[in-house]
This record gives sequence, C-alpha cells and structure tokens, in this order.
Amino acid sequence: MRVLGIDPGLTRCGIGVVDGAVGSPLSMAGVGVIVTPTDIALEARLLDLDRAINEWVSIWSPDVIAIERVFAQHNVRTVMGTGQAAGVALLIAAKSGIPVMMHTPSEVKAAVTGSGRANKAQVASMVAKLLNLKEIPKPVDATDALALAICHIWRGGASAKISQAVAIERSRLRKLRG
Amino acid sequence: MRVLGIDPGLTRCGIGVVDGAVGSPLSMAGVGVIVTPTDIALEARLLDLDRAINEWVSIWSPDVIAIERVFAQHNVRTVMGTGQAAGVALLIAAKSGIPVMMHTPSEVKAAVTGSGRANKAQVASMVAKLLNLKEIPKPVDATDALALAICHIWRGGASAKISQAVAIERSRLRKLRG
Repeated sequence: MRVLGIDPGLTRCGIGVVDGAVGSPLSMAGVGVIVTPTDIALEARLLDLDRAINEWVSIWSPDVIAIERVFAQHNVRTVMGTGQAAGVALLIAAKSGIPVMMHTPSEVKAAVTGSGRANKAQVASMVAKLLNLKEIPKPVDATDALALAICHIWRGGASAKISQAVAIERSRLRKLRG
Repeated sequence: MRVLGIDPGLTRCGIGVVDGAVGSPLSMAGVGVIVTPTDIALEARLLDLDRAINEWVSIWSPDVIAIERVFAQHNVRTVMGTGQAAGVALLIAAKSGIPVMMHTPSEVKAAVTGSGRANKAQVASMVAKLLNLKEIPKPVDATDALALAICHIWRGGASAKISQAVAIERSRLRKLRG
C-alpha cells in the first residue's frame, strides 16, 4: 500500500509518500514541504497548494491519502489557514477518487512512538528509524507527513481496505453509468 | 457590478447574487443555500459544495466573489468545517480568475444596517428592504450571503476595481504567454 501523508498548512505543508503494509518493512518513496509565499493573496496561496498537491498525487499515484485532523483548540491563530489547506487536500482526494482518512496528532504520535504525548523530536527520530533513513528529513512538517503515512499503514489497514473497496465499486458504477 | 456572496459552511452554505454599484439601486439576481448531507464523508461533502458553487459561478458569471471571513474564536465547534468550506470557495475563485475579497461579519453588519453589532433579524430585514424584496429570504444563511454581496458593492468598490484590473492584466499576460 502506498500512502501520501499530508500535514496541511498554508505557510509550510508537509508531504510524504510511504510504501508498506502491516507486518512488512516500510520504505519512503518521497518527502517534501510545499511552501506558499506569505506576501501573495490567500486565494493565490491555495491555488499554489492545489497545484503542488495535485502534482504529488499524479507523480506518486498513492492508494490512500492520509491527512492530519487538526482541532480548533490547538492553535487559534493559524487554524483558519490550516482548515482551508485541509479543505484543498480533501477536495483533491475526492476529485481523484482516492480514499482519504484523517488521523489526529495523538493517534499519529501513538502509532509511531508508542506514546500519544511524544514530542516532535521523538516522532522525527522514530520516523527516520522506521524508514531506515540515514538523516532525519527537515523541516518537522516533512517528518510529520511521513509519520502520518506510517500511522495510516499501521492503524488504518482495515478501514483503508473498506474505503478502497468502496472507491473501486464507485468508479465501476460511474463507468457503467457513463 | 455583479457580486456573488458566499457565507461558507458545510451543513448550510448561503449563496446570493446581487447587481449594483455605489449610488445606484441594488437588485437581487439569485439566492439559495447549498446543503450537504451530514451522513456522508467529509471529502464527499466538500466535493458536493465544490460542484454546487462552480455551478453558481458558471450560471451567474459574477465580477467578484465576496466570502465571509470567519475567525476561529467565533465558534470553535464548527470552525474547521467553515475553514474547509471557505478554502473550497477561495480555490474556485482563484481557478476561475475571479477577484475575491473577504469581509468580516461586523463589516457586513455595519455596511448593511449601520451598526457592527446588529442582530441577524435586523440584517435580514435590511437586506430585504435594500433589495426591494417582498419577503425575507430564508434561512438566515441566504440573507447573510446577500448582505455580504451588498457590503462588497458598498465597501469594496475601490479595492474591487484594483483586483479586477489586476485580474484582467494577468489573464492578458497568460494569453500572451500561451
């Protein structure tokens, strides 16, 4: 299973691709950070983000997209930008017919480190270990996106299979109707 | 000037089209509410919203899109959904090359009623009066969208002209490059 993890954000959006399955070794296919300039209009930043995520999707053809579910309480100042960026990512998944799932930061931490309260450095270091990387990818948004993809592979196995079956069935019905 | 006002929301997204200019009478071209089912996946709801807003844009060809700028403080419970819906609306504007502006709820209230603290009933009643409507459109999300469009016509005149000039220039450059 190939999972594209997205840590949504306007200023820095972490993105990472991990291949793996429960009980098999994991490997990183790609990792990066999408940066949109802070001095252009909000709608132009969302358009940049839309183009960049679409590019990642078309290059890597993920089976599933995993997005971080952020709660309003966490950071009031940036929450609207995060919501808008997450909206763009969710819409891309829906338009491409790729199953999408959201995981909370504590689900991600617990899956990767064993503790829902791990700090960012602990998560980053476990991500590098699990993916057998010589260096920890920077910045932290990038490792967060990889952690999200790993979390999805380990946690979301069963639900991901169901979403995928539904997606395949939907696309089959679409073709029959078309 | 034709303005499409959008009061973003996942459960109910108010939408309204107003024609007018500073110093001229206003008239309503269309009004409605986009409802997405609460029992389908979040990404499917955003896809429904995307399709519906795109339909409004293509039917009414607005010169400007005005979107309500919501702050996280206002309603923590629904703020992520509002952010995601606003992200979809902003992206549609950017993709169609239509200038977009955001106005805060108090700017809208002040523009329409003269007071930034007016209640929803006062705003709705002024909207009906200004647009010469025999009945107040329902639900309140619909009148909020119309109020937003009116606010834009009255407040955003100068900035809207600048955004429009920029949009025209951009599309000219795009054509030259293409």
